Amino acid sequence: MSVKLETAQEILLNLVTVMPKERVALQECWQRILGETVTSDMDFPPFNRSPLDGYAMIAEEVTAASPENPVILKQIDYIPAGGNPSKAISAGTTSRIMTGAPIPPGATGVIRLEDTIVNGDNVSILDGRGAEKNICLQGDEIFQGEEVVAQGTIINAGVMGMLAVLGKSRPYVFRKPRVALIATGSEIIPIDYPLVPGKIRNSNSYMLSAQVAEAGGQALFLGNASDNIDEIAHLLESASDCDVFITTGGASVGDYDLIGEVYKKLGVTLLFDRVSMKPGMPVLAGVRDGKLFLGLSGNPAAAAISFEQLGRPMLMKMAGRKVWWRPRIKGILASPFKKKTGDKRFVWARCWQADTDILVEPSRAQGNGMLKSAMAANALIVIPEDSPPLGVGTEVEIILLADA
Amino acid sequence: MSVKLETAQEILLNLVTVMPKERVALQECWQRILGETVTSDMDFPPFNRSPLDGYAMIAEEVTAASPENPVILKQIDYIPAGGNPSKAISAGTTSRIMTGAPIPPGATGVIRLEDTIVNGDNVSILDGRGAEKNICLQGDEIFQGEEVVAQGTIINAGVMGMLAVLGKSRPYVFRKPRVALIATGSEIIPIDYPLVPGKIRNSNSYMLSAQVAEAGGQALFLGNASDNIDEIAHLLESASDCDVFITTGGASVGDYDLIGEVYKKLGVTLLFDRVSMKPGMPVLAGVRDGKLFLGLSGNPAAAAISFEQLGRPMLMKMAGRKVWWRPRIKGILASPFKKKTGDKRFVWARCWQADTDILVEPSRAQGNGMLKSAMAANALIVIPEDSPPLGVGTEVEIILLADA
Repeated sequence: MSVKLETAQEILLNLVTVMPKERVALQECWQRILGETVTSDMDFPPFNRSPLDGYAMIAEEVTAASPENPVILKQIDYIPAGGNPSKAISAGTTSRIMTGAPIPPGATGVIRLEDTIVNGDNVSILDGRGAEKNICLQGDEIFQGEEVVAQGTIINAGVMGMLAVLGKSRPYVFRKPRVALIATGSEIIPIDYPLVPGKIRNSNSYMLSAQVAEAGGQALFLGNASDNIDEIAHLLESASDCDVFITTGGASVGDYDLIGEVYKKLGVTLLFDRVSMKPGMPVLAGVRDGKLFLGLSGNPAAAAISFEQLGRPMLMKMAGRKVWWRPRIKGILASPFKKKTGDKRFVWARCWQADTDILVEPSRAQGNGMLKSAMAANALIVIPEDSPPLGVGTEVEIILLADA
Repeated sequence: MSVKLETAQEILLNLVTVMPKERVALQECWQRILGETVTSDMDFPPFNRSPLDGYAMIAEEVTAASPENPVILKQIDYIPAGGNPSKAISAGTTSRIMTGAPIPPGATGVIRLEDTIVNGDNVSILDGRGAEKNICLQGDEIFQGEEVVAQGTIINAGVMGMLAVLGKSRPYVFRKPRVALIATGSEIIPIDYPLVPGKIRNSNSYMLSAQVAEAGGQALFLGNASDNIDEIAHLLESASDCDVFITTGGASVGDYDLIGEVYKKLGVTLLFDRVSMKPGMPVLAGVRDGKLFLGLSGNPAAAAISFEQLGRPMLMKMAGRKVWWRPRIKGILASPFKKKTGDKRFVWARCWQADTDILVEPSRAQGNGMLKSAMAANALIVIPEDSPPLGVGTEVEIILLADA
């Protein structure tokens, strides 16, 4: 069953659902996805408070004060931060007030310390303009009952601070989807084994673990397996607490292309086994008991792109994200792409802003040796089906992989 | 000592050095900064290998093969992935070869299985064009002795895969700078305490912990302290294994502005105690035994901007990053900024691409209640010193906070 890329994406997105929620200590929540809509149970600020160190008074009494004609008030109280006023302000009186302390009853303004001269209980106000602005009003930032942070929000620094203000010390976040990674192929050895003739190291699981993390998932390394149905099936069964199972290798047509057989053995229903795109055409997907199986190519270029196009949106949805797709923009080719394209193609590239245009350049080394290209890429060029070679100046669609 | 922002940045950057290196298991290295330049001790691929399942032969022998005039070769060997050839190819012979397996001696091309018909030992090649391209040459991606990944590289998915290829199972990465966080102020309570009159929750430490993580540091929560020199000093001394000490609160002029006194008590040399920018003017910096102390305002807006401008570049340098500054671009105001500006000012904003321009709009709620602005912002507008109010259409410089 060969399918178009868009069909494959739709099949997978329709099969997955968002992960269950879990409570996590707020200090561990950076970059997690909020699993609840947080409503404030209080006003913030919780009381009218002073934004500065100074004196509180009736604002109208000091509006006209100047160094030549100071207004002299009598100090009746001293309100430290964290304390509470013991006296109300009436005509001719003032209270010393610290940054963050509650405004006393009756006061309608605050004047900063630097604009006063103090002599015993007598406080001379030298400049009284704008006194009424120096009060942070109760509920000015947040009102009781307000929906402040929506479910699905990524917890950045501002959200982290806001959740702290609201006392959400253990907010609900979506559990990260757990993704089992297996590299198959009798030529594959673990990365800390000595390299012997005919063998190469398992780089795919490491590359994919980072791609999984970027998509909001948690990778579990199950190691590598030789080209043996029972061995691969056994490894997959060993990770029953995972939500998604990704293998690399054994996905294309040929004697040792075993993943289809592994799916049969495990009772995994095959969804498709080829997707019309390059690289990444050989890719299997299956489902069993609501758990998704992806069988990617053993070729790093193909595995990376297949994951990017099929695995990533699916994990983004499972992780509770509101947006599953990377941003796409238009760019202008700064160097040619010389190959004719049959199936839709994705090309590692670097893009940059030049005057008013975004320019984009395919990475030099594409194809099998792709890790160098992927290391330096900040974009993928999308080349539509049945395109001729593309010259300098052609407008192309690009997918942004990171801050460009 | 009040200084200009650029001076403050220079003072801090000159005082900090990059962290020592540590070895970390590769699977834990995602987003870490590589602490060594990695040179390959081998060619990659380590041997000429087949990128597909098929047959290896002398390429010239099959160039003219077609379904009507197949070239028939005799199979002499079977080379599985992970195996090694036992026989050399000579005229008229071929070996079955799997994806990833070594090309046998004498062979100069590979034809995929789909373009052959096999009858016992006789292999009919139906299409022999391009056979010579189906060999991944030893050293094609990486040659022995090549500097493949430079010190200071951020370990993304491609780098992760590359380090695995090279067998770097425990690469050197720079240790993350450890940053102690203390919120001072007698009005501050921990976030899981019940809110009582006159008190507010410690949001600054949570906001800053995320900002520290974004800058490549590791935050340590030391909790909060009342406005008491001894208490704050004692807390700071308790975290002697930290590299940077950040307090919030007690940084501006007034009775309870204690951080300067705390520095004196601890023998911390004051570097400056005011920086000409808004928000974030009240900010102290000090140094003792090569360890940096930052005293930020207790106002979240001021603390966030002071950290962004002073703490972040310093931590980026300490963390081993090559680039310490966020990208800056030009944008066009889509709504006015109505305040006159004296000291250089930073304004939370959202920017977006519209046709050929980047448009930018100041967040609605600025000032004291800033967490809502910060939650939604993807940029900061930089307003130069002594600027008039700025109307719609004004070109402004913006700092990009994340993928825009």
